[in-house]
Amino acid sequence: MDTAQLSTIVKHIEPQMIAWRRDFHQFAESGWLEYRTASVVADILDKLGYQLQLGQEVFVADARMGLPAQEVMAAAFERAREQGAIEPWLSHFANGFTGIVATLDSGKPGPTIGYRVDMDALDLDEVDDPNHIPSQAGFGSVNERMMHACGHDGHTAIGLGLATLLAQTRAEWSGCVKIIFQPAEEGTRGAKSMALAGVVDDVDYFTAIHIGTGIAQGQMVCANDSFMATSKLDVTFTGIAAHAGGNPEQGRSALLAAAQATLALHAINRHSEGASRINVGVLNAGTGRNIIAPSALLKVETRGQNNTINNYIYQQAKQIIQGVATMYGVDYTIKLVGAAQSSVSSPEWISFIQQQAQASGRFSAVHSHSQKPAGSEDATYFMERVKACGGQAAYSIFGTQLAAGHHNEHFDFNEIVLSDALHTLAMLTLNFDQFKSES
Amino acid sequence: MDTAQLSTIVKHIEPQMIAWRRDFHQFAESGWLEYRTASVVADILDKLGYQLQLGQEVFVADARMGLPAQEVMAAAFERAREQGAIEPWLSHFANGFTGIVATLDSGKPGPTIGYRVDMDALDLDEVDDPNHIPSQAGFGSVNERMMHACGHDGHTAIGLGLATLLAQTRAEWSGCVKIIFQPAEEGTRGAKSMALAGVVDDVDYFTAIHIGTGIAQGQMVCANDSFMATSKLDVTFTGIAAHAGGNPEQGRSALLAAAQATLALHAINRHSEGASRINVGVLNAGTGRNIIAPSALLKVETRGQNNTINNYIYQQAKQIIQGVATMYGVDYTIKLVGAAQSSVSSPEWISFIQQQAQASGRFSAVHSHSQKPAGSEDATYFMERVKACGGQAAYSIFGTQLAAGHHNEHFDFNEIVLSDALHTLAMLTLNFDQFKSES
Amino acid sequence: MDTAQLSTIVKHIEPQMIAWRRDFHQFAESGWLEYRTASVVADILDKLGYQLQLGQEVFVADARMGLPAQEVMAAAFERAREQGAIEPWLSHFANGFTGIVATLDSGKPGPTIGYRVDMDALDLDEVDDPNHIPSQAGFGSVNERMMHACGHDGHTAIGLGLATLLAQTRAEWSGCVKIIFQPAEEGTRGAKSMALAGVVDDVDYFTAIHIGTGIAQGQMVCANDSFMATSKLDVTFTGIAAHAGGNPEQGRSALLAAAQATLALHAINRHSEGASRINVGVLNAGTGRNIIAPSALLKVETRGQNNTINNYIYQQAKQIIQGVATMYGVDYTIKLVGAAQSSVSSPEWISFIQQQAQASGRFSAVHSHSQKPAGSEDATYFMERVKACGGQAAYSIFGTQLAAGHHNEHFDFNEIVLSDALHTLAMLTLNFDQFKSES
Amino acid sequence: MDTAQLSTIVKHIEPQMIAWRRDFHQFAESGWLEYRTASVVADILDKLGYQLQLGQEVFVADARMGLPAQEVMAAAFERAREQGAIEPWLSHFANGFTGIVATLDSGKPGPTIGYRVDMDALDLDEVDDPNHIPSQAGFGSVNERMMHACGHDGHTAIGLGLATLLAQTRAEWSGCVKIIFQPAEEGTRGAKSMALAGVVDDVDYFTAIHIGTGIAQGQMVCANDSFMATSKLDVTFTGIAAHAGGNPEQGRSALLAAAQATLALHAINRHSEGASRINVGVLNAGTGRNIIAPSALLKVETRGQNNTINNYIYQQAKQIIQGVATMYGVDYTIKLVGAAQSSVSSPEWISFIQQQAQASGRFSAVHSHSQKPAGSEDATYFMERVKACGGQAAYSIFGTQLAAGHHNEHFDFNEIVLSDALHTLAMLTLNFDQFKSES
Repeated sequence: MDTAQLSTIVKHIEPQMIAWRRDFHQFAESGWLEYRTASVVADILDKLGYQLQLGQEVFVADARMGLPAQEVMAAAFERAREQGAIEPWLSHFANGFTGIVATLDSGKPGPTIGYRVDMDALDLDEVDDPNHIPSQAGFGSVNERMMHACGHDGHTAIGLGLATLLAQTRAEWSGCVKIIFQPAEEGTRGAKSMALAGVVDDVDYFTAIHIGTGIAQGQMVCANDSFMATSKLDVTFTGIAAHAGGNPEQGRSALLAAAQATLALHAINRHSEGASRINVGVLNAGTGRNIIAPSALLKVETRGQNNTINNYIYQQAKQIIQGVATMYGVDYTIKLVGAAQSSVSSPEWISFIQQQAQASGRFSAVHSHSQKPAGSEDATYFMERVKACGGQAAYSIFGTQLAAGHHNEHFDFNEIVLSDALHTLAMLTLNFDQFKSES
Repeated sequence: MDTAQLSTIVKHIEPQMIAWRRDFHQFAESGWLEYRTASVVADILDKLGYQLQLGQEVFVADARMGLPAQEVMAAAFERAREQGAIEPWLSHFANGFTGIVATLDSGKPGPTIGYRVDMDALDLDEVDDPNHIPSQAGFGSVNERMMHACGHDGHTAIGLGLATLLAQTRAEWSGCVKIIFQPAEEGTRGAKSMALAGVVDDVDYFTAIHIGTGIAQGQMVCANDSFMATSKLDVTFTGIAAHAGGNPEQGRSALLAAAQATLALHAINRHSEGASRINVGVLNAGTGRNIIAPSALLKVETRGQNNTINNYIYQQAKQIIQGVATMYGVDYTIKLVGAAQSSVSSPEWISFIQQQAQASGRFSAVHSHSQKPAGSEDATYFMERVKACGGQAAYSIFGTQLAAGHHNEHFDFNEIVLSDALHTLAMLTLNFDQFKSES
Repeated sequence: MDTAQLSTIVKHIEPQMIAWRRDFHQFAESGWLEYRTASVVADILDKLGYQLQLGQEVFVADARMGLPAQEVMAAAFERAREQGAIEPWLSHFANGFTGIVATLDSGKPGPTIGYRVDMDALDLDEVDDPNHIPSQAGFGSVNERMMHACGHDGHTAIGLGLATLLAQTRAEWSGCVKIIFQPAEEGTRGAKSMALAGVVDDVDYFTAIHIGTGIAQGQMVCANDSFMATSKLDVTFTGIAAHAGGNPEQGRSALLAAAQATLALHAINRHSEGASRINVGVLNAGTGRNIIAPSALLKVETRGQNNTINNYIYQQAKQIIQGVATMYGVDYTIKLVGAAQSSVSSPEWISFIQQQAQASGRFSAVHSHSQKPAGSEDATYFMERVKACGGQAAYSIFGTQLAAGHHNEHFDFNEIVLSDALHTLAMLTLNFDQFKSES
Repeated sequence: MDTAQLSTIVKHIEPQMIAWRRDFHQFAESGWLEYRTASVVADILDKLGYQLQLGQEVFVADARMGLPAQEVMAAAFERAREQGAIEPWLSHFANGFTGIVATLDSGKPGPTIGYRVDMDALDLDEVDDPNHIPSQAGFGSVNERMMHACGHDGHTAIGLGLATLLAQTRAEWSGCVKIIFQPAEEGTRGAKSMALAGVVDDVDYFTAIHIGTGIAQGQMVCANDSFMATSKLDVTFTGIAAHAGGNPEQGRSALLAAAQATLALHAINRHSEGASRINVGVLNAGTGRNIIAPSALLKVETRGQNNTINNYIYQQAKQIIQGVATMYGVDYTIKLVGAAQSSVSSPEWISFIQQQAQASGRFSAVHSHSQKPAGSEDATYFMERVKACGGQAAYSIFGTQLAAGHHNEHFDFNEIVLSDALHTLAMLTLNFDQFKSES
């Protein structure tokens, strides 16, 4: 499809994407609690004619990490209903199964082209400030300690815009399109359980996206390969309380164990193959000044430039925690509450994305790769799975102006990026016949 | 005064003491927030004819330790008013000046005999259980997270009973009586600031009391000298937050500083002169798993068998905290939120107490000393001050049956102890002419 | 025997004791290497008519702790021979079996009265200084890094003086006398293995001695009960070396394990029953700056005011070391290289010693007990064993002027103490008929 | 000069290079003690007609790091004399001034081309094994704990070979040649003080070399840019000794300080810009098990992928050590005993080296760069100085077969590499007219 024609269609869909984005922003829902969001998404996709897989169908239940407590999930579910969640879709998502896989078959032979967007907000109170556009325009988050401060509201809107465009242009392309709406990307908790459920096993060409991340408005990065593999651990130590003055010898201090573990974790040796990280970000221990502390919680994060390095740090961490427990005669638990992999995008697919992005005329610069050190992303689970099944995968970033950094309470982005992304992502399907594989 | 006669008077006052005790129990108020309690106490003492020093008069304001936050004090003050605090006394106690010194002059020459009772409850939710007498009898605490679980409600009632008895028998004794109603003994926060204000400087013979503490009903200990000197420290470290994955080198981890300090504090060398203790009972640090922790709080407690030993531990602790801050490039604060001394009771005064207690006929056993290792008590500040001013001092314990240990949510005592204490303490003034000083 | 008569005998033996002491001083031999000393002692005792148990007879071989390396023992044995060790006695002591038990039977019924002296020097170079009497008088140690800087040369001389006196006065006393010449008291390494061999099982009244220790010349302490129970541990960690720049992830640092263990050992909680100590006195780890350290050695010492407390610290220490090894993936060994117990002297036996010491007329003050905090002593193993077998035991100290503190290279004592001790100890046997047991 | 002609000259010099190498190998001298080696080198260079700067002329004396103790230097100097060091050159090098800068002027205008070789051996005992060629051929090290196990003997021989060749061919080239014979490269101790003395400030094109390092025989790497910046620190803590049982509160444990520092050093945060390293490789502390340790020594090493990162680690380390000293009330010293920088070779000079090496016909492969992670090298100080003065610099590696890895007691190399290096290095001067600078 020629660019001018596509631009017209994108232009047409743009207001709807902005409206969706603002709706999701206002009713921000954090990880595993995207009940209202998912029901709205499902309803739109259904009306567009997509085949839907919903809730339990698209997860390996036990592989979901970092689920909120049962009562938190129940309360959020109830609130979603009050805030206009759409039945009957809502019921599919109960108990933290807030994922959707939408498929549209062109009816013509061709590859399956996959896209992944995420839907979750952060646990953050949005600022209420006349200079903050969501405040100004009246779509600031109404939910306490939940805010779209990372742009996933935009990602979801892009996903729906793409679904709309490809449904409208179904006659123009071949093969299948599969759009994945993922929950709980924050904390890298959601993708693994969907990837393990096989939802991308039939995807030939896969693209996950993000907006912002420091890339300037009007620029694009086709492949961000610098995501670090990561593990998120909640560690508890359980000791024995005793009066610190009266009989200290009867206590077993979980606090001392936690302090010792913290030092040892941070002292794990560097790995010669590349960058690693370890952080004990939170330590909460003890009940009273004069009590040998019976309990401690550590929130720990490991990272590695590749999966081997992260696994090295992770295994060392587990050994340290076990040893510390022995030292202090305390019990321990280690709970994996988040994980992501490193992943390298497929060169041919990157080339194609770059060529299409340049052809779109929307960007002043289209970079094939980003060298910027980055955080972690669990879309990497999808990417690694696609590649393991013989497909190709990439992680692309669309630049945009930010009002404040990601995860900041003043975060906001320029909504033009929604159309930039829609245009480019649509071309990957519409112009797939221009793709030249070397193999 | 002969014992039979005194017994009759005590018997007469007993129901009133029990009523007072139950009233204070029901409207339990924790340290520095004893607004209602103090106003009731002041009103009674005033009606009995005592001269009162109130509020700011009896404190060195800056020496008060571990004050609650301003808004907590304001809310408690408002609640006291709603729960029947008595104007105009109430206003004297605003902003955590909840102490009273009551003096009665016999008009005849003689020594000043001082008593100290304390008035504060603990930050604890009282159990609601049909087997718990306060529940049964309808005087369980109505204040959330405040409970008289250490017997200070009884101490206050004893103080008022004693004031009543000595006012009634004023003709029978010589000299002056001075009764100190102290706030915030829990956490050893209140006595120092009253002692520094000079309230016991004119006291010749001083007795502080406690009920229970494991001494059997019907027994008494004249001198408990095993209180350990103690310091309670709140330590904060303030570092620099940074993304633990993105730019760890920009962070300065308050959490790591806290962990290192914890280990070093616990590793302070023993002192050859006697027992010492150190405990980091609480450590709370960090804001998120992936953030270099910008802040940490430690609740620390030192103890020593004598003041020298405690001071040794305390000075070492300060040095460690300062050094750790340098190590990690973080700022720190050390706030002394509680302190008590060790103190040895005066031998002659002990002998007199023992003689009177035996003569009272109320006890099956009257021990001159207790060897039991104990906690800490800030009445020691009064004792040391009295002795420094040339007086004599003792710390006496009246045994009683306990429903559960001190600081337990099922704590309760047998109210007979109120009369045991009243009877004995009154004799110290009434029979002072029997006291033979060796000097 | 009357005091004047005894004084005359003591006076007669004194020069010989001084000569012996100086001989042992000159040929100082440290723990388990007292080859020459033991052979001289055996020869004298044999000539006095004592029955001797020697070498392997008086030890449980495996219970000997802290033995020097095989080649060190062999070299010292050779040197002893060169320095005048007496054959055939010498051969009994080979391989660190340097103990002697000497028995003399009076032929009359009566108790077995036991004495224990020790024979080992310290690993220290003696000063060569004109003001140092051993230098002056030409009996400074000729053996490198071996010096009698604790007075055991005197103890051995006293033991021989006592043997001489009691042999001369055999007609005057009843029962049996048993004198134990113990090796390797320094480091508390030798007594346990002799006690386990049963050498004091038939002793009814037992006295171990020391000279000096801060007690003034002309004073005596009948019972020093403040020795702390102790354990001496050599701990090794064995990790995996790796180039710290090239592949740090392949290393397992024994040095880090040792550092972590050190902090945790020092942070073992105090015990509420009494004093405890922990010290990592020596830490040697690593082979090169740029190598992950493959090995580490810690020299650790625990102490407790009683055996329970010491055992508490010791068990905690073992758990810490095991846990640290797990943390760092290193191997470890714990070797017990010394141990002593706490022990309380028997009250009746103390009274008797005090009465005799006072009667001797040699002391300006005879204290029944010492409150001075002290180190550790493995004679406690004999004392506990005697008491467990139904006997009575004491640990007595004879004051003397010291040129410098114990274990100092200028250490020396006033040789008058030899006679003070001889006189008093002899009376315990000679005047045993004055002993009144309450049982 | 054409390759055939040059090959002939090289062939001619080869036996002499081998003889020199074997001589230096036999009389191996470690860092700052290269007295005999330097005197032999100076004598040869002088005879070849080079202008020599010697000893103190070529160092900033205070910037020399990691000097041996005075008596070690004196003894080595004496031994050098006994082993054939050549007077009067020897005296210039006394007291660890063992460097030489040799200059030859062609008399024609042209650039100054610099070379750097190093002369020091390692503190290692060479194996004596019939399979080890130096043993076989009789040139194994005769000096205890000194062995050329890194190939610097070869480097020195190459430097002399190059000096010989360029003196012989002086008519064929223009400009100046400057050859630097550096001491104490091991531990990265020597280069900084020579660079600071300005010895390369007039060098336009600079090449430092190494043989081996895992590059195969017959291959060459023109630019090894992966050397990490490094700092070598000797850290001491000085505390106060005290008897750990008797009065632990009087001690200040240098051992505890060292343990705490070790953990904190290893826990320094990673740097986001690249690889870093920290290692406490050696920790020696304490004098006796029962003594609070008065002294401790740590051998520490930091590294960074670039100078900024290494400096970050180094500054953090200094802060930690200072803070730990405060914590424990101990004194400390930090001595910088070695340092190197990271350095990137100049692209144009690399191209020229690559072109000449390929033209030499001696290599099966000539790599422009090596990606191998490597250790550290203080030739980087020369390189950075040359570049700062406007020149160009490179670090080149000549591959060779190794009998065992560098720093191994079986280390040996194939002496063919001497000629490979000589041939290539000579071409840089002889064919400089082929060099095309882009600037």
